[in-house]
Formats: sequence, C-alpha cells, structure tokens
Amino acid sequence: MPHIAVNNELAGIRGLLNFRPETAEPLGDLANILLRDTEGLSPAERELIATYVSYLNDCFYCHNSHGAIACIYLGGEMAEGDANAVVDAVRADPESAPITDKLKALLAIAGKVQRSGKAVLPEDIERARATGATDKDLHDTVLIAAAFCLFNRYVDGLAANTPADLSSYEPRARQVAERGYGKHIFSLQQPVR
Amino acid sequence: MPHIAVNNELAGIRGLLNFRPETAEPLGDLANILLRDTEGLSPAERELIATYVSYLNDCFYCHNSHGAIACIYLGGEMAEGDANAVVDAVRADPESAPITDKLKALLAIAGKVQRSGKAVLPEDIERARATGATDKDLHDTVLIAAAFCLFNRYVDGLAANTPADLSSYEPRARQVAERGYGKHIFSLQQPVR
Repeated sequence: MPHIAVNNELAGIRGLLNFRPETAEPLGDLANILLRDTEGLSPAERELIATYVSYLNDCFYCHNSHGAIACIYLGGEMAEGDANAVVDAVRADPESAPITDKLKALLAIAGKVQRSGKAVLPEDIERARATGATDKDLHDTVLIAAAFCLFNRYVDGLAANTPADLSSYEPRARQVAERGYGKHIFSLQQPVR
Repeated sequence: MPHIAVNNELAGIRGLLNFRPETAEPLGDLANILLRDTEGLSPAERELIATYVSYLNDCFYCHNSHGAIACIYLGGEMAEGDANAVVDAVRADPESAPITDKLKALLAIAGKVQRSGKAVLPEDIERARATGATDKDLHDTVLIAAAFCLFNRYVDGLAANTPADLSSYEPRARQVAERGYGKHIFSLQQPVR
C-alpha cells in the first residue's frame, strides 16, 4: 500500500505523478528528452539503460515498465521473442548480451553511476570513446542512469502500487512508445492500468 | 577534469546544464518547485534535506552548494554563525541537531531514500506523521531525496568541476536564494563562478 493517499486507479509512478502534477511536468519533460531523443543513442538503447539501472536498483515496477518499452522499440528490428531475449540478457549481464560494444561500454558506465557517480573512472570513459561514444552519448548515459536513481527511489520510497501481473505492463508500454511521457500517463480519463 | 568538454567558466552542475540546455530546463523547473515551494516545508528545510542527502552521497559540490543556500535562508531567522552550526549539525547527525522533531523524522526518511527507496518502512512514515507531517511533506521529502540522488550522480558521474575554495560557494548560493534555479545559473553572461 502506498505511504501516501494516491489514486489506486493509477499504477506505479502514475499515481505519484497524479498526486503532484507540478513536479510531474518537469519529470515528464526530462523523460521525454532523455528517453525519446533519436540523436546519438536510439530510444531502444536509452530504454535499455533505464531498464538496467532500474534492475540494479531492484525496482520491479520500473525495470518491467521500461523493459517492456525497450521490447516494443526493439520489436521494430527483430522478432518479439528475440527482443525479449535482448532485454533479459541486458538485465542479467550486459557484457555477454547480444548488443553493440558501444552499448556494453555505456551500460558499464550506467552500472557504476547506479552505485556512485565517483565510481566512473577515466578508463570507463576511454573504453566508451574507443567504441565511438560521443560527449553527448556519455552525458545522456550518465543522466539517464542518474534519473533512474531518482525514479526508482520515488516509486519505492513512497511504496507506489506495483502490479505483479507482468502482462499488464505491455499495454502501458505501448501507450508510452506511441505517445511519450506526457500528461496522459497520469490522467484518470481512460487510464491504462 | 570533467569527463566531457564543458565550459570551465562554470562550476559544478552549471557546466553540465550549459552543455545540454534541453535537459537543464526540466531539471531547473524541478529544483524550483521542490526547493522553493513555501507550502508545508520551508525553503530552508528543503535545502537542509538536499544538503543532508548530498552529504551522504559524498558529493562535495552539492552538499556545500546547498548547505550555503540553507545558511542564507536560516540567516533570516538567526545569526550567521548559528545558521552555519545548524547546517553542520544536520550533516553530522540530524537526530541530535537543533531542528524540529518533524524535520528530524523527515531527514530520517531522506537518509533511507538515499540508500534505497525500499528502506523506507511504514514506521518511518508513522513517526513523521506523529510530528505533523502531511502527505505533501512526505511526498516532497522523498522526491527531494531522490532528486539529489540524481543531481549528485550527475555531478560526480561526469566529474564536474568542483571548486575546493569554500568561500566561492556563498556568492553562488546568494544568487540562487535571490533568483532561483533558472537559466541564469548556467549562463555565460556574468557568471558567478
């Protein structure tokens, strides 16, 4: 049960965003820029970074939500079963996952940011640069990882409603993939639970 | 030296915000709402939560920046030396600091959020409610703590410039106390370094 009185029609972070629309707006804007930008990292790569950090933070709601969104984006490039396998492999161990060397290097940085910003060393940055990562890729990787250290703590720190039924995440993920992280995700009009 | 090419005229997070103005805007909006709202928690209390979490995350730039801002707000109520003593006491141990029982209970929650959202237990929430904390106070405390888990990782994960001279933090803090977390903090026109 959530620690504060949120609308139980809305799952996960949606109930919190609905509770305080003033902070929901910049949080949604931040997510839209960081996760849907197509310059440099693809939306699929950005969602994989979000999924991996959320998994390391043991945030069930966030790693399943963003894993489902990553699957939808990856589904444009491969069969659904293969997309699921990529997301599962990234959660389990990015170094052995079927992803590019660049994304492996960036996920290694994201994993360090999850522990502490200070854990990121010059050699981590050099490894990523050697695979073609730009300053913007590095910036966005660190900020996506840092942002999910916020989102995960926001969701679990207020004990947001977390649906246990994994099949409920796909329709919400499709809504985000199609319409982004706008106000519709915490609207009570025809909510996707 | 920062991991990416930022303008060295701008200290700490300011150089990062200047590097990527698209994400700077929602981050600034979020900081303005969470740290300058006067309903429920005071700006001084909000900055003390930010300072404490940044100190726990060992982010020198952030805990000194926000500690200096807290001092300025507290300076409206007490002598400057006393304000400094309150900030130092909160960093060292909120439970024995000269602050209200309500703020002690909220800082205990913030300290748990710094470790993990899941560390916040119903008894932590009950303790805060017994001192008069509202749902909004609880929400804002968790989100401020979570936000500084973002800001601290952003600053240290990209190895932002961190001035070692503590006297340089006060003029920047005064600028924020007077004008907020708007675009001026990462503008190169007459920057306060």
